[in-house]
Amino acid sequence: MAKGKDDKKTAFQLKVPKGTKDWEGKDMVIRDKIFGTITDVFKRHGAVTIDTPVFEMKEILAGKYGEDSKLIYDLADQGGELCSLRYDLTVPFARWLAMNSSVQSIKRYHIAKVYRRDQPAMTKGRMREFYQCDFDIAGTYDPMLPDAEILRITTEIFDALGWQGRYTIKINHRKILDGIFAVCGVPEDKIRTISSAVDKLDKSPWTEVRREMSEDKGLDPAVADKIGEYVNLRGGEDLLAKLQANETLAANESAKKGLDDMALLFNYLNVFKVMDKISFDMSLARGLDYYTGVIYEVVTEGSAPASAAGATPEAQRAQKKGKKAAADDDDRSNDPSVGVGSVAAGGRYDELVGMFSGKTQIPCVGISFGVERIFSITKARMEAEKTAAGVRLNEIDVFVMAFGGKGFTGLLPERMEVARTLWEAGIKAEFSWKVKPKLPQQFKQAETGGVPFAIILGEDELKDGKVKIKQMGLPEGHPEKDGVLIEKSNMVEEVKRRVAEFNATNEVAEKVGAVSI
Amino acid sequence: MAKGKDDKKTAFQLKVPKGTKDWEGKDMVIRDKIFGTITDVFKRHGAVTIDTPVFEMKEILAGKYGEDSKLIYDLADQGGELCSLRYDLTVPFARWLAMNSSVQSIKRYHIAKVYRRDQPAMTKGRMREFYQCDFDIAGTYDPMLPDAEILRITTEIFDALGWQGRYTIKINHRKILDGIFAVCGVPEDKIRTISSAVDKLDKSPWTEVRREMSEDKGLDPAVADKIGEYVNLRGGEDLLAKLQANETLAANESAKKGLDDMALLFNYLNVFKVMDKISFDMSLARGLDYYTGVIYEVVTEGSAPASAAGATPEAQRAQKKGKKAAADDDDRSNDPSVGVGSVAAGGRYDELVGMFSGKTQIPCVGISFGVERIFSITKARMEAEKTAAGVRLNEIDVFVMAFGGKGFTGLLPERMEVARTLWEAGIKAEFSWKVKPKLPQQFKQAETGGVPFAIILGEDELKDGKVKIKQMGLPEGHPEKDGVLIEKSNMVEEVKRRVAEFNATNEVAEKVGAVSI
Repeated sequence: MAKGKDDKKTAFQLKVPKGTKDWEGKDMVIRDKIFGTITDVFKRHGAVTIDTPVFEMKEILAGKYGEDSKLIYDLADQGGELCSLRYDLTVPFARWLAMNSSVQSIKRYHIAKVYRRDQPAMTKGRMREFYQCDFDIAGTYDPMLPDAEILRITTEIFDALGWQGRYTIKINHRKILDGIFAVCGVPEDKIRTISSAVDKLDKSPWTEVRREMSEDKGLDPAVADKIGEYVNLRGGEDLLAKLQANETLAANESAKKGLDDMALLFNYLNVFKVMDKISFDMSLARGLDYYTGVIYEVVTEGSAPASAAGATPEAQRAQKKGKKAAADDDDRSNDPSVGVGSVAAGGRYDELVGMFSGKTQIPCVGISFGVERIFSITKARMEAEKTAAGVRLNEIDVFVMAFGGKGFTGLLPERMEVARTLWEAGIKAEFSWKVKPKLPQQFKQAETGGVPFAIILGEDELKDGKVKIKQMGLPEGHPEKDGVLIEKSNMVEEVKRRVAEFNATNEVAEKVGAVSI
Repeated sequence: MAKGKDDKKTAFQLKVPKGTKDWEGKDMVIRDKIFGTITDVFKRHGAVTIDTPVFEMKEILAGKYGEDSKLIYDLADQGGELCSLRYDLTVPFARWLAMNSSVQSIKRYHIAKVYRRDQPAMTKGRMREFYQCDFDIAGTYDPMLPDAEILRITTEIFDALGWQGRYTIKINHRKILDGIFAVCGVPEDKIRTISSAVDKLDKSPWTEVRREMSEDKGLDPAVADKIGEYVNLRGGEDLLAKLQANETLAANESAKKGLDDMALLFNYLNVFKVMDKISFDMSLARGLDYYTGVIYEVVTEGSAPASAAGATPEAQRAQKKGKKAAADDDDRSNDPSVGVGSVAAGGRYDELVGMFSGKTQIPCVGISFGVERIFSITKARMEAEKTAAGVRLNEIDVFVMAFGGKGFTGLLPERMEVARTLWEAGIKAEFSWKVKPKLPQQFKQAETGGVPFAIILGEDELKDGKVKIKQMGLPEGHPEKDGVLIEKSNMVEEVKRRVAEFNATNEVAEKVGAVSI
């Protein structure tokens, strides 16, 4: 940048735009570990990533988001093409698939920022710039195999994050729902709107959903009651058997297809050891229109912000009093791609790519992880369990310091040479950028950074070809509390061995998973 | 996203905006390895990263880029704040420092996209959206220590990329240049413009730069000749000694200060073993106004695009004919933060943060790596050396397959179970998503992905508790060409051992560095 002549010193407010934030410090470290954990799992399953531009041609996004299109950020018309900031990662992926027709199959993940010109509510986590994390499998395969692997990946991710026993995957199938609506007598033209009403069952009681169906949407109350018999069901393979045994449902072609899919999927999920995390939940409907098969949502304790949990008595009372619309608006989290209270969601969408390619359909199944919500929950847990303090701000393993009595020179060239030797061996090391630093200053700098080891140089020791290595923070009385003299020529090996041992011991604590428990 | 009612199937052109691109396939893999290599070095030196929003308040960017401000992308005025896409990573960092006055020192790196509404020239690598990679050290330390460490980091990065012996760090000092201009008799108000002229010596011959000084900028030709005696000098410690011995120069306060800095820096660079990569080059001036101390630029063979190399006879002829302006425009690469022909550049800027904070100055020194140019050079070398073909598209280590004779069931549950076992052990594994895949299909899928190992299941072997492990692509005659039967109970250990051995053998080939040589 060139310093212009029209500089005005702080004639303006120093801030970031509304609804955006700087990621820094421990938040940045924790977030990076979460992203790294998730990415490792994707790679373990052969996924690749694609990086699309932050802005797309305006017309690519137009007409894709219904009413929410008003939330799209446009670039100013400065001549040339009209562009908009991406609103999600799904449309750019579908656009890419349509542009690259030679790609008939791909497993891709994409962790990146998306933009929504929404009213920000930072305390509720609703931002104008926020991260999405999408994983999608495109291509034609034998039925339910990619679907099963996505759910396996989902469990691997939450297990790796340390959430074992704390999350449930709710699962349902669009075709089963459609079949239920058909056999209950919902008119064809009301199926989508009734489906949206059902989708609210995670935060509204059935009485309220039933009222919406009959009063707001004009459904025959008798039909609503029939729906109620189905959509309040949940279970596992037992529920599937029950539905399969239901002759009315089995006679419906759509329901039959959906139940067959689920039977096959449950077989695969048993082999993948995923079934114990599954809740087959007939109330799960997912708001988005484009799903064509299995749909799922991951919920965890505390995944809904307290104020948004419709299950709280206050919220239920508010809803009963007809304050639903306002509550709905308040409930919107920063990532509408996952439902309220969920930390990941997705499903099969076999007809979306055709919107761009016109001709070729590429079947897809995917999941979006609400990474900012996962971050918030992880951080809140770490703070509650006081593990956040242990997060190291940088990755330095060794702080190189020096001490001496009267006439101490600072041993700067010696410290630099030791640091260089460590760097050459790939060891993460720092030293004080002072010519003559005091020993307490150096210790303080190392402690502030949470550096686990110090190499301490002294003139006499150096003459003997020795340096001292000291593990920081050892308790009083520990035999190595004051450090150990080692041969300088052996320093790299000693450091590597000790750092490896330290990391092995602290591996559990280093993982986001463990610190979040 | 919701499928709107106004969808128009392919009524628009499927493309990305001009000057932007999708990163995918091998390019994505190579780029990620380069970013990973660079990030590892930053972390080895204790750096942390900060993630700022893609757009900033418009007024934050205003007046920072001089004439180039016209290239800033604004967001449309849709009500509310006026925002612009970031133009570089330096202004957001300075803005962040000014907003976080409690941060008195930090080593931060940032690899992210920046935006310039420039005329794109894809073949020349000039894009509207492109990556920058900045590393900066802010804070008050003893002189030249952070500066020396930045140059050490620079060599570690290019060495890790496999560029040993292929790059040179040109170095100079603003205060020495200012001193030279002063003792040669350049009027105070002409110093910046004469400095810009000098900066062109990397692509224009001295005769042309001299002409520009005297004819275009009205400098006394005798003064220009005196400047010529200095700015065509280059060397190392010998040149420094020569300049220190120059009494005229040593009598100038600014030059003296710069020479003292350089002497101290060279001492440190000797300890850091960096001096052999250094060229003390008096023609290096760096265009940007805000540098206050040491300045540097990394050049490599082929770092200037052929068409941009002013050293070619055609270009020199064109320049002599006065076509300089046009040539200048053509020469602009995608990353003006590094000079033409350079792959990294930076320097000390002690007064920039004050533009935002108004009161507190925080001294800074930094470097920007031209990561897209580093990518292009790496890729071109890999293609020339035919190593690009060896880049694996994903990281899968094991492909789980099955075979059988008549009545072959496909062994799907068995393949799934083996894959699950491998995943549980953290091994990257895939299998065919077909119920009954043919063996050649499975081999083809593994080969296409460049997967190094196959686990092959057969019904008879499974009955005996055995599976076959086969390293792909072994030559005819190799004793393990057809694979080896191992105990299934021992599979994870066998796979881990073989993958580790394979990776150790191929480590060299896996590194971007090595593949680029």
